[in-house]
Amino acid sequence: MLNFNFYSPTYFEFGTDTESKAGELVKRFGGTKVLLHYGKNSVIKSGLLGRVKASLDKENIGYVELGGVQPNPRDTLVYEGIELSRKEKVDFILAVGGGSVIDSSKAIALGVPYSGDFWDFYSYKVDATETLPVGTVLTIAAAGSEGSESSVITRTSTDTKNGYSNDITRPKFSILNPQLTCTLPSYQTAAGAIDIMAHVFERYFSNTPNVETTDRLCEAVLLSMVSEVPKAIKNPDDVDARANIMWAGMVAHNNIVGVGREQDWNSHGIEHQLSAVYDVAHGAGLAVIFPAWMTYLVKEKEYGIMRFAQIAVRLWGVQMNFSNPKETALKGIECFKQFLSSIGMPINFEQLGAKAEDIPLLVKKFGLVENETTGGFYNLNSKDVENIYNTALLLF
Amino acid sequence: MLNFNFYSPTYFEFGTDTESKAGELVKRFGGTKVLLHYGKNSVIKSGLLGRVKASLDKENIGYVELGGVQPNPRDTLVYEGIELSRKEKVDFILAVGGGSVIDSSKAIALGVPYSGDFWDFYSYKVDATETLPVGTVLTIAAAGSEGSESSVITRTSTDTKNGYSNDITRPKFSILNPQLTCTLPSYQTAAGAIDIMAHVFERYFSNTPNVETTDRLCEAVLLSMVSEVPKAIKNPDDVDARANIMWAGMVAHNNIVGVGREQDWNSHGIEHQLSAVYDVAHGAGLAVIFPAWMTYLVKEKEYGIMRFAQIAVRLWGVQMNFSNPKETALKGIECFKQFLSSIGMPINFEQLGAKAEDIPLLVKKFGLVENETTGGFYNLNSKDVENIYNTALLLF
Repeated sequence: MLNFNFYSPTYFEFGTDTESKAGELVKRFGGTKVLLHYGKNSVIKSGLLGRVKASLDKENIGYVELGGVQPNPRDTLVYEGIELSRKEKVDFILAVGGGSVIDSSKAIALGVPYSGDFWDFYSYKVDATETLPVGTVLTIAAAGSEGSESSVITRTSTDTKNGYSNDITRPKFSILNPQLTCTLPSYQTAAGAIDIMAHVFERYFSNTPNVETTDRLCEAVLLSMVSEVPKAIKNPDDVDARANIMWAGMVAHNNIVGVGREQDWNSHGIEHQLSAVYDVAHGAGLAVIFPAWMTYLVKEKEYGIMRFAQIAVRLWGVQMNFSNPKETALKGIECFKQFLSSIGMPINFEQLGAKAEDIPLLVKKFGLVENETTGGFYNLNSKDVENIYNTALLLF
Repeated sequence: MLNFNFYSPTYFEFGTDTESKAGELVKRFGGTKVLLHYGKNSVIKSGLLGRVKASLDKENIGYVELGGVQPNPRDTLVYEGIELSRKEKVDFILAVGGGSVIDSSKAIALGVPYSGDFWDFYSYKVDATETLPVGTVLTIAAAGSEGSESSVITRTSTDTKNGYSNDITRPKFSILNPQLTCTLPSYQTAAGAIDIMAHVFERYFSNTPNVETTDRLCEAVLLSMVSEVPKAIKNPDDVDARANIMWAGMVAHNNIVGVGREQDWNSHGIEHQLSAVYDVAHGAGLAVIFPAWMTYLVKEKEYGIMRFAQIAVRLWGVQMNFSNPKETALKGIECFKQFLSSIGMPINFEQLGAKAEDIPLLVKKFGLVENETTGGFYNLNSKDVENIYNTALLLF
């Protein structure tokens, strides 16, 4: 196991009707005037925003509103949020929405007290030392931003999608009401679930030996997802299934399952190009890329066979073939693909609406130059990335 | 799943040589003058205290020392620590030791800013609103106090052992260096491990339905313990095994594996009487009580059969007997007893040095009056408690 530090100081208020505590929690964490940040009108129509406002009113906390956050949140709205917050002397950012809204909120919170351009953080020029406090009312189990130290923003002028990680951006509090996710369409539910599972896989596939505790914790989250996601797809109002998924989504990404080990986030990067080019849901893109990445490593590179066999046995209940571990590893990948299909996720280019002829563009956008590799469980070069896209083309 | 809140704001610095960061961390969390609190001379002899002091010196942080914490920490030393801290204008308590030292530190930290008797908190008269910050340098994986919101203190005058839980007592930081645990005798290593496993069982056995995520997380910690503890017993210098156990010990007790469900802490209470009467290690007492509690519930009460079968299958790898789940449940308990014996733990009264004739005293000390029951997974009355002690007498 490697040395690490772990710091997850977010206060989680979990359960039905907990959005009514928003005002109380803003007050507890020092907020007196709030930027209420959200995305689509659905939070207005559903009445959620009204309930959050009532809760703020009850505690005499003032607020200004800024809606309109899009999936893959844009720097343009972040600049707007920073300006508005300064003008209105906001001292707390309250995100009402999913990962995009929370990420946009984190960026605004970093930008307000900073004299330069907030993009300095996302372009790795400067490390932030200060931020406004952020709270969240989560509406979808997926990104894990409600408990994480990271956020991703897209720079509109260059179409660059950059992430920034810093423990100071972890939310002060997050309100997780699983009921709020019952109205999500099944496609979004499934895509969110795959995002959660990907956050675990990205930590699980590691060359760091002897990491049994985090291995088992990773598998725990995955096992629960495999059990609960089909329930939520079958019966959208299954609040218990929604609750299990929602808590798993936090645990998957606050890094408690990933400490002390090298991680591999290459699949995330390979997917990012798909969602950039086709504007598909991140989770759907991951459903196509992850099995392809796995298949390529096991079938073509014969790399990490025993680790893929381990997950096949421990997650998918495959019987270990002791004389042919590769077969076990491949059976596990088959189980994953069947699971993805069963919850309505695409597993190849055609099902996602991606095109073979775009592969050179995708590879170029991924951005590796000749002889360059990107590290992780398996170091990929540009040819590997191309091969993984090609594998995704052919998966059925 | 039940509504819950979860708040674990401790900063964990994990890995080899991390005690050298003590000074830096005290400074980061606002300490300028420290009460350095510890137990036996072993932390002096091993050089650990010297390294911590050097780290404080480096940051120009003053300190006063108070050693002498005993297992089952006493109120008398807590009063001494409060007086000393006030006199010396200490603003930070740094615990160097195991659960007892950390618990004593938490109690001192609560007492310093409070005008009344600190025992008011532990006798549930008053809820604390203020505390000095506490940091820890952990020397044994067991109690989980390094990440928990609870502490247990013994009132010497009445021999009363009371616990107090409050999120404000969670340490600001905890330094977890698994190397420090390599010198522990195997008995202490095993007893600590059983304390960790008990913290999970006490959360696992629950009547709350549909708690798959926390069920799986509980099983993850237990699976890792079953894998890693024998390694640490066989080879005390296996730092990776020590590291896995140490992280598992924190995860087991900061409540991330126990949220959203009723819990059952009766076994803890039944054991407390054993350690009070015989001065045995808490973990060794738990090794005797837990299989007895399980056996009594399954064999005599036929209660919770499917949950015991679940842990038999998922933790111990027992094949499910679908026509006789009780048999599966009992096989799981047998596996647990074999595991305990294999790591040198007692599993019955004789092996622990407890006596049949003391059972009436133990039952009386447990303190249930007629018709009273104590809640949890299975509600126990005084006769049940007696029966569990009697079961522990007979286990082999």
